[in-house]
Amino acid sequence: MNLALLSDDDFVSADCVRLTGRRLRHLTDVLKAKVGDDITVGRLNGDIGTGRLTRLTADIAELTVTLDQKPPLPLPLTLVLAMPRPKMFRRVLQTVAALGVKDIWIINAYKVEKSFWQTPWLTDDALRENLTLGLEQARDTRMPTIQIRQRFKPFVEDELPQILQTRPGIVAHPGTERPCPTHINAPATLCIGPEGGFIPYEVDKLVEAGCQAVHLGNRILRVETAVPVLIGRLYDSCNH
Amino acid sequence: MNLALLSDDDFVSADCVRLTGRRLRHLTDVLKAKVGDDITVGRLNGDIGTGRLTRLTADIAELTVTLDQKPPLPLPLTLVLAMPRPKMFRRVLQTVAALGVKDIWIINAYKVEKSFWQTPWLTDDALRENLTLGLEQARDTRMPTIQIRQRFKPFVEDELPQILQTRPGIVAHPGTERPCPTHINAPATLCIGPEGGFIPYEVDKLVEAGCQAVHLGNRILRVETAVPVLIGRLYDSCNH
Repeated sequence: MNLALLSDDDFVSADCVRLTGRRLRHLTDVLKAKVGDDITVGRLNGDIGTGRLTRLTADIAELTVTLDQKPPLPLPLTLVLAMPRPKMFRRVLQTVAALGVKDIWIINAYKVEKSFWQTPWLTDDALRENLTLGLEQARDTRMPTIQIRQRFKPFVEDELPQILQTRPGIVAHPGTERPCPTHINAPATLCIGPEGGFIPYEVDKLVEAGCQAVHLGNRILRVETAVPVLIGRLYDSCNH
Repeated sequence: MNLALLSDDDFVSADCVRLTGRRLRHLTDVLKAKVGDDITVGRLNGDIGTGRLTRLTADIAELTVTLDQKPPLPLPLTLVLAMPRPKMFRRVLQTVAALGVKDIWIINAYKVEKSFWQTPWLTDDALRENLTLGLEQARDTRMPTIQIRQRFKPFVEDELPQILQTRPGIVAHPGTERPCPTHINAPATLCIGPEGGFIPYEVDKLVEAGCQAVHLGNRILRVETAVPVLIGRLYDSCNH
């Protein structure tokens, strides 16, 4: 936690917040903060700044906050991700939130195991918690939106073409001639398949919707590795 | 496991191997392989190809192998990494092996917790196991070399300058004016600090040894995210 993310509920007055639970424990156990210390804070979807610790008990931390800096700019990237294995899903959420991705779609695909959809990490609270951890890691405040689509075809036929109008799409497909573009530094949509990849029918549907099929070389990478590598390749900086 | 990595000990004749343990269980439990099936195999530090399953019992799998393709090219990158938290260390090893890094140095730094050096993941067998998992993920056969240096100063003064002669170094340092270079596609050394970063003394020593200090933007990334993002940014492909 390189920033404590504050929601409206935390504010007891215009410039005073009270923290409990995870953030309080982080202050006391990890940061070993004492009254008078300054820590980095940010308001959900707002500015970042400093919180001075004015009171600390076993149950509550009170801070006087000054919010005077803008959060880092978001990446102009939409991520369309076939639902990964739950353990990996959680880490991928934190990673993409830390990298500044603000528009995330989790979709079904033929090789997504049905059991993956049962994971508690898909509840609203769990999604928000993991995205928050990513934002707090990267000192960001802008909460990504996340859409869950358990049916592949209606998403690709009815929703994806609209997304692609402002953010051209690429989909990784091993058979293709064209290599993945690099340092585009422009709006884009990145479609990432499940372990084992999208099946040919799915790639065809994604291409029909307007995506360009590209290959990523002959190394097969895990989703949690492929996503940051591709973001690094597409964007020269995560502060666009 | 997208490739079964074969060592000399696995060969019972010029083109026949016997697998037991982890690789056997993967064949039967994950791949559900049957006699007559072909799986992708590669010889440690050698070629890759196909293994046809000729015999399968509860204890052993026998394959006839044909090795006729080169493994992916290595990245011309040396990674100098301050010892990460053990749980993360293991994942980082697998990731960098999958990405084609062949020269890894694990070093000490002021903010590396002393307890990190006690982890069983630092034994020769554990290092080799995690590097193997990364190679098998990426269908590579060339085992990275890994050097452990528990003293920062002798490494930076006596060994690093030699490494930098053929692979110019960069070190991430938040205060700096110069942004991280992108798509260099050339030999390089990447120095990555611990959680909380290298301290100014350490950055000074790394710069004295010949590294260039660069900043990575205002997002703070975990080591396991920063490494693949930076590799994506430095190299247009992981098949150089």
